[in-house]
Amino acid sequence: MPTIVVEVMPKAELLDPQGKAVLGALTRLGQSQFSSVRVGKRFELTVDGEVTDAVLAEVKTLADEMLSNSVIEDVVGIHVVSTEPAGASV
Amino acid sequence: MPTIVVEVMPKAELLDPQGKAVLGALTRLGQSQFSSVRVGKRFELTVDGEVTDAVLAEVKTLADEMLSNSVIEDVVGIHVVSTEPAGASV
Repeated sequence: MPTIVVEVMPKAELLDPQGKAVLGALTRLGQSQFSSVRVGKRFELTVDGEVTDAVLAEVKTLADEMLSNSVIEDVVGIHVVSTEPAGASV
Repeated sequence: MPTIVVEVMPKAELLDPQGKAVLGALTRLGQSQFSSVRVGKRFELTVDGEVTDAVLAEVKTLADEMLSNSVIEDVVGIHVVSTEPAGASV
């Protein structure tokens, strides 16, 4: 069954405490080649049946209204991936 | 500055309570075309300077050891994206 991936990130202009914490940990580990880290969410929606334009439009609406908080987050990507959910043991 | 995206998902064979909660909400909203939802993390690491093979190898190690919990999560993707972090206001 096809899987649709929705990627949500905090708005770039907002402070990202989680990202700052990861960046601090990387710096303490001596990893100084990173200037910033941002942490967002990745949703995998497995669809029963075909992924039609209507389904994709529906997912876009759901992404904006339900899977992200439009005040502090942006939906940065929606794409269809292989039929097997990522990391599925085959 | 180039950005490296690291995608981490819960292991497929494990229960994903967050995913179940989202699926339940979708079903209550009448969205019955989804058979499963899984929720993971998406990291954006902005790199100072070039993304060399050495930097990518380093990020792979960091992804496995720091950005994910290898007991319950899989690193499902590491890729370099445009120089501008996603959603950056230009």
